[in-house]
Amino acid sequence: MASDYINALLKKEVTRTPIWVMRQAGRYLPEYRETRKKAGDFLSLCKSSELACEVTLQPLERFDLDAAILFSDILTIPDAMGLGLYFVEGEGPKFSKPLNTLDDIDRLSKPDVGNELAYVSEAVSVIKKNLKGRVPLIGFTGSPWTLATYMVEGGSSKNFSKVKGLMFENPNHMHQLLNVLADTAIDYLNNQIEAGADSLMIFDTWGGLLNKQSYEDFSLRYMSKIVAGIHRHYEGKTIPVTLFTKGGSAWLEQIALSGCDAIGLDWTIELREAERRVGSQVALQGNLDPSVLYATPEVIVTEVNRVLDQFKGKTGHVFNLGHGITPETNPENMKVLVDAVHSYNKFK
Amino acid sequence: MASDYINALLKKEVTRTPIWVMRQAGRYLPEYRETRKKAGDFLSLCKSSELACEVTLQPLERFDLDAAILFSDILTIPDAMGLGLYFVEGEGPKFSKPLNTLDDIDRLSKPDVGNELAYVSEAVSVIKKNLKGRVPLIGFTGSPWTLATYMVEGGSSKNFSKVKGLMFENPNHMHQLLNVLADTAIDYLNNQIEAGADSLMIFDTWGGLLNKQSYEDFSLRYMSKIVAGIHRHYEGKTIPVTLFTKGGSAWLEQIALSGCDAIGLDWTIELREAERRVGSQVALQGNLDPSVLYATPEVIVTEVNRVLDQFKGKTGHVFNLGHGITPETNPENMKVLVDAVHSYNKFK
Repeated sequence: MASDYINALLKKEVTRTPIWVMRQAGRYLPEYRETRKKAGDFLSLCKSSELACEVTLQPLERFDLDAAILFSDILTIPDAMGLGLYFVEGEGPKFSKPLNTLDDIDRLSKPDVGNELAYVSEAVSVIKKNLKGRVPLIGFTGSPWTLATYMVEGGSSKNFSKVKGLMFENPNHMHQLLNVLADTAIDYLNNQIEAGADSLMIFDTWGGLLNKQSYEDFSLRYMSKIVAGIHRHYEGKTIPVTLFTKGGSAWLEQIALSGCDAIGLDWTIELREAERRVGSQVALQGNLDPSVLYATPEVIVTEVNRVLDQFKGKTGHVFNLGHGITPETNPENMKVLVDAVHSYNKFK
Repeated sequence: MASDYINALLKKEVTRTPIWVMRQAGRYLPEYRETRKKAGDFLSLCKSSELACEVTLQPLERFDLDAAILFSDILTIPDAMGLGLYFVEGEGPKFSKPLNTLDDIDRLSKPDVGNELAYVSEAVSVIKKNLKGRVPLIGFTGSPWTLATYMVEGGSSKNFSKVKGLMFENPNHMHQLLNVLADTAIDYLNNQIEAGADSLMIFDTWGGLLNKQSYEDFSLRYMSKIVAGIHRHYEGKTIPVTLFTKGGSAWLEQIALSGCDAIGLDWTIELREAERRVGSQVALQGNLDPSVLYATPEVIVTEVNRVLDQFKGKTGHVFNLGHGITPETNPENMKVLVDAVHSYNKFK
């Protein structure tokens, strides 16, 4: 699919800077909240390919976005491994059977992804069919390190004391766990590709709380393993892969060596500086502060232009926020954002 | 006071690498929890100079630390401005009268620091007297930006939507607020110096959630104003100032230009790299990941040495964690840490 989004990731010519937004299908949209109510709970929404398709397409109805992203959760893999994912309103994800002991890790094995996670591939197929080639579809997984933090902590965490304790005390068990997760993620993403995903993201939400050495050893290494294990070329298409480590802007040079096509950036780094450091090797995605969307249309346009000016005349940039759009955002401001990106003349 | 701690901050010769630990007087110590129980609540503990002194000295009884830090809260300034600080167990700080409107900001003025915050100077005097010159005493303030986040959000926040909205929509009011806070912080720190503080820290807990431009305009600028406004030389002593922006390692070059003597580092940057970037201009403080303290003594010693090896043979380094010690930490491991730093031979 010769879209601007795919072309930008592959550093080919584009007609304009493409944009999609992390969590573009989400709680800031009233129609999303309606569908979610219909589904009952969050996990049922993820597990119904029809409803997942419905919410995936919702933002495309409203905004001129350049890509759709599969609606799912990053914790589907540990759920398929038997940890019992559930959600408590206002508290985030939890596991009923977290990894409490080294034995729990020893007992863990790669699930039958084609079976246990069939609902995800199914959702990809349904979305793909309903998209009718309008825009490319992004598939995704959580990074092994990020999945491991939830599996060991039993949910969200403040200090990540359990998972970091495990990492420092029993690095071998930690590597064992990360290997199983990486192997599972490879199958998972390959199934998404076979079902029709045109591009892939690996979300490393919690890599940024490691130090440089631990990041390389426990997070990046396993994302690199995934990148090496997936079908980058499938049925004549090149499937670009984007790695996003929140809080990882200090390590762009290392991330660029992972074999990925693009790096997602949070807003703490200037796009210009990221381009200078790794722009010859990879494409870049990002990086407007999501809280700019709390401001007036005038401010939004100014801030969008400030980002785009840093990449003027060049390809290799996909516009996005530096983190997911927040539930408090006014959907009108999302429209201002998308239109501002598209009305910017990159070549003038 | 010719201590290793002060000398390291001023990049003078030291006999060994000095160490203190953020939140060294805190919940990980059973004796702290006892005193806090005695005080009733957290704010009463801060407001009693006797009890504040008691908890300040507790870690020095157990560990061979090179500095004491005033026990207080970063939110004493907004409390003195009439916002009504209170603490809800497990939820962090709250304000009963947060800044909800632009009028609220217009009505704000610099409090009579000598009067409203006399309890802090009083605590400094009492601690200083009880320290008997054993180690230097560190005074501190929260950064204007960090104080403003709590004042506008009404407490802790997840997305900081209100304060960022204010910053983007009404930058003039934001600057007005930050100016009052900076002016107040100058008086506050000068009073701490007069009461006996030997060194100062400015804690910028939330600067790291800004982008580079906003960080310079709304956080660093006001820390620089404070640095310029305080008595750096008092009664024959030089009072070094350390700035700590959590998540600010991308901006070390800018921070080094603030006029500070030292920069506090979180653990996401290698000490070696920070030294290469700004080590000729400022001293550095940090930067072990606090979660290393969940590991075995052997791992702690290895990780301490890994940090210290990066500064071998040079002065200008104060050992610390990259963030506060966590309540879950075993005090025995704090001892392992302090002893590991002191038994390291920096010159061999």
